[in-house]
Amino acid sequence: MSVYTMVVQGTAFTSRTPKDVDILRNHLFCINEAGVIARIVSPEEQDYEAIVEAHRSSLRFKKVADGQYLLPGFVDLHVHAPQWAQSGTALDIPLYDWLNTYTFPLEAKFADLAFARTVYEDVVDTLLANGTTTVLYFATVHKEASLLLAEICAAKGQRGLVGKVVMDDPEQNPDYYRDADAESAIRDTEAFILAVKKLAETTKQGVYPVVTPRFIPSCTDEALKGLGELAAKHDTHIQSHCSESDWAHGYVRERCGKHDAFALHDFGLLTEKSVMAHSNFLSEDDAALFAETGTAIGHCPISNAYFANSVLPVARWLDKGVEIGLGTDLSGGFSPSLYDGARQAVISSRMLEDGVNGKLPTAERGLPESRLTISEAFYLATAGGGESLSLPIGRLEAGYAFDAQVVDSRLEAAKLPVYSSDESLEDVFQKLLYLVRPEHIREVWVQGELVHKRN
Amino acid sequence: MSVYTMVVQGTAFTSRTPKDVDILRNHLFCINEAGVIARIVSPEEQDYEAIVEAHRSSLRFKKVADGQYLLPGFVDLHVHAPQWAQSGTALDIPLYDWLNTYTFPLEAKFADLAFARTVYEDVVDTLLANGTTTVLYFATVHKEASLLLAEICAAKGQRGLVGKVVMDDPEQNPDYYRDADAESAIRDTEAFILAVKKLAETTKQGVYPVVTPRFIPSCTDEALKGLGELAAKHDTHIQSHCSESDWAHGYVRERCGKHDAFALHDFGLLTEKSVMAHSNFLSEDDAALFAETGTAIGHCPISNAYFANSVLPVARWLDKGVEIGLGTDLSGGFSPSLYDGARQAVISSRMLEDGVNGKLPTAERGLPESRLTISEAFYLATAGGGESLSLPIGRLEAGYAFDAQVVDSRLEAAKLPVYSSDESLEDVFQKLLYLVRPEHIREVWVQGELVHKRN
Ligand SMILES: [Zn+2]
Ligand SMILES: [Zn+2]
Repeated sequence: MSVYTMVVQGTAFTSRTPKDVDILRNHLFCINEAGVIARIVSPEEQDYEAIVEAHRSSLRFKKVADGQYLLPGFVDLHVHAPQWAQSGTALDIPLYDWLNTYTFPLEAKFADLAFARTVYEDVVDTLLANGTTTVLYFATVHKEASLLLAEICAAKGQRGLVGKVVMDDPEQNPDYYRDADAESAIRDTEAFILAVKKLAETTKQGVYPVVTPRFIPSCTDEALKGLGELAAKHDTHIQSHCSESDWAHGYVRERCGKHDAFALHDFGLLTEKSVMAHSNFLSEDDAALFAETGTAIGHCPISNAYFANSVLPVARWLDKGVEIGLGTDLSGGFSPSLYDGARQAVISSRMLEDGVNGKLPTAERGLPESRLTISEAFYLATAGGGESLSLPIGRLEAGYAFDAQVVDSRLEAAKLPVYSSDESLEDVFQKLLYLVRPEHIREVWVQGELVHKRN
Repeated sequence: MSVYTMVVQGTAFTSRTPKDVDILRNHLFCINEAGVIARIVSPEEQDYEAIVEAHRSSLRFKKVADGQYLLPGFVDLHVHAPQWAQSGTALDIPLYDWLNTYTFPLEAKFADLAFARTVYEDVVDTLLANGTTTVLYFATVHKEASLLLAEICAAKGQRGLVGKVVMDDPEQNPDYYRDADAESAIRDTEAFILAVKKLAETTKQGVYPVVTPRFIPSCTDEALKGLGELAAKHDTHIQSHCSESDWAHGYVRERCGKHDAFALHDFGLLTEKSVMAHSNFLSEDDAALFAETGTAIGHCPISNAYFANSVLPVARWLDKGVEIGLGTDLSGGFSPSLYDGARQAVISSRMLEDGVNGKLPTAERGLPESRLTISEAFYLATAGGGESLSLPIGRLEAGYAFDAQVVDSRLEAAKLPVYSSDESLEDVFQKLLYLVRPEHIREVWVQGELVHKRN
């Protein structure tokens, strides 16, 4: 019998498919030195008791308490780390004005590394406390501050995929906040990629550099082309915004004579390791291109209500084979919690299905067959995010990183309404997904390491 | 100079109008023996220091700590107290099926007073911990368990308005869960009214009996007529559901030959003290009738996404002079927090304004001028709720009950992103409204009494 670095005994929920959640009652999660789940053992298996016995008396054994449950850590596909400083504010004007009035002045302040450190430490701590173990981050244009964000992720144990933002078009960006030109943008990005790859060598859970053109409207063709080449050269992840709002979608059609998706593809920016935020206005052809290239959508349901003028038809694109995960989109979305994101994904999908304007006849109001269940939203926040990033994360399954959150349904200060010990675990799962708040998240683990704990 | 029962010194936010929030920086809230705000004193007033001096050394003085703020307690206009036991589950089928499959079997269990006590104590504690100081409750058909809910509110210090539910139509309700007939429904309701009025005599913050036909589809005409008469005889509040979904709206049109609003009015059920949940499918005439009779809408934005097939046009009805407050609608809405409700009110209003189906042209997608700001949503959760109930609550203002929540922006475990002590209080207010969770709510006061505290 193997001896593992750690054995966790408890009841877990994990997505098997987008629609189906596996309930692993009182299983053993056997974790190796790399922080990967080597094996999951059900109570029916012959060596279950022997494994428990072999580990029970050591620090290698952890029993999840009664009333507590294991979930995979969440994967957040879209966070603007600097914007945490304005979360909850500045939600009153459309995207274009919002960038210029609130967001660019704030992001410009991240030239100051001391300010950057304050906000970045805070946002990483906050996301971990919300059960988010992997994050795809936009930083700012500043190479040094962006590297600082990667270093903070590394130190705090979060799996960070970090992008230095590129925005070099002098016509579209303010002089006080942009890359000097395409050439320096590419040069800074390459230096950033190399620095993060070096940092990754000593980071157990991984940190990853991400090629990050803000979106087509803020970049010159030269920069976009150069970034596509850089991503290929260094085999990096890629992120940007795609067809987010009527305005952004229209701007790209005007400038490029095609939809965002095809324009990004021409620049070499749609690959298996690409994640495009929002993507609300994809056509059928655009979605087919996403599926074909392995490009994922970072779905941001809260932010979309403020800035995207529509609801992403998630059910439709999942059916077409597009990879989709969830993003909070701090601070376009105000909440750092993917529990909130998952709940809004369900709510928005219901509103898309039923429509919103009661003055219209029922049949003309909505888009049939759009609804998502909370199980599907859970999939988006976990396994869907992992697939989007092409990383072995987001599932409690052998071969996956042990990234997990331990949630407590019996917290004295905020008991969940589970009154009977024979309540079905299906119902318990739904109550957790709808009612858990950060205080219920007692522990967060990344790659087999405890990175957040509440006492 | 007067000596007050208590003086609270701190910075507060309270609605002046639906659109405008007053910021009371470092004011004194002087509270009398009845738990009512006798006077509010700004630092510019001459006797400010004298009042501080006179109270400072006694237990009568409370200084709100730096980084903490006072908000009015929330007024929840729609809670099904028994359904807390299924919150977060059972959100997958339409209203009619939902009632029969999940909800009636659960509510039937409240014949058991021990079970009722467990759930009712829990839901009252939970709502208080979420900053909700006044609640308009549906209980169940059971007279005794409904009275128990009122007693629990009285004991825990929450201002409870409680209704024994009437549902007497044998065609529309299951045999295992309904009133025996109209006569017994009226008799039980009257006995309930008298018992709650007696309880109110010894309850500082007030408890109130509410005439509560579940909705027209579950009641006979005889019961509805009798309930209207009872409400007039005893001058009680009235609550029901109005035009909630396509199905409910259509059912009443079919049976009564008119819209819910006019049918309810015919039964004497629309008065200044009436609150109708949902009311999504009101026509212009229905809304005018609400405004004219002083009938309020209990707006339940989360629940509406699951069961109401549309978004309530709040901005439009506010303009027409209809009173509106917020409801969680546990468990049609999963969250016990009116912070969540206020956030969803804003989100849903944006989705109504912009529309949801991106395949439609921009101009055909939504309903212009529907958006609400977070200040308007705050109004709905506080002052709007108070006006809906015709009670002096929901504002931090002289003559109003001192119902308040103290929220902490600097909680170590969940710091809000306020980095500078000179951040504008307008921004702080928005961050509180969007980011506060129960753990930030350190104290809750009702009628001058501390009813919830976190250490
Ligand atoms: Zn973004
Ligand atoms: Zn209801």
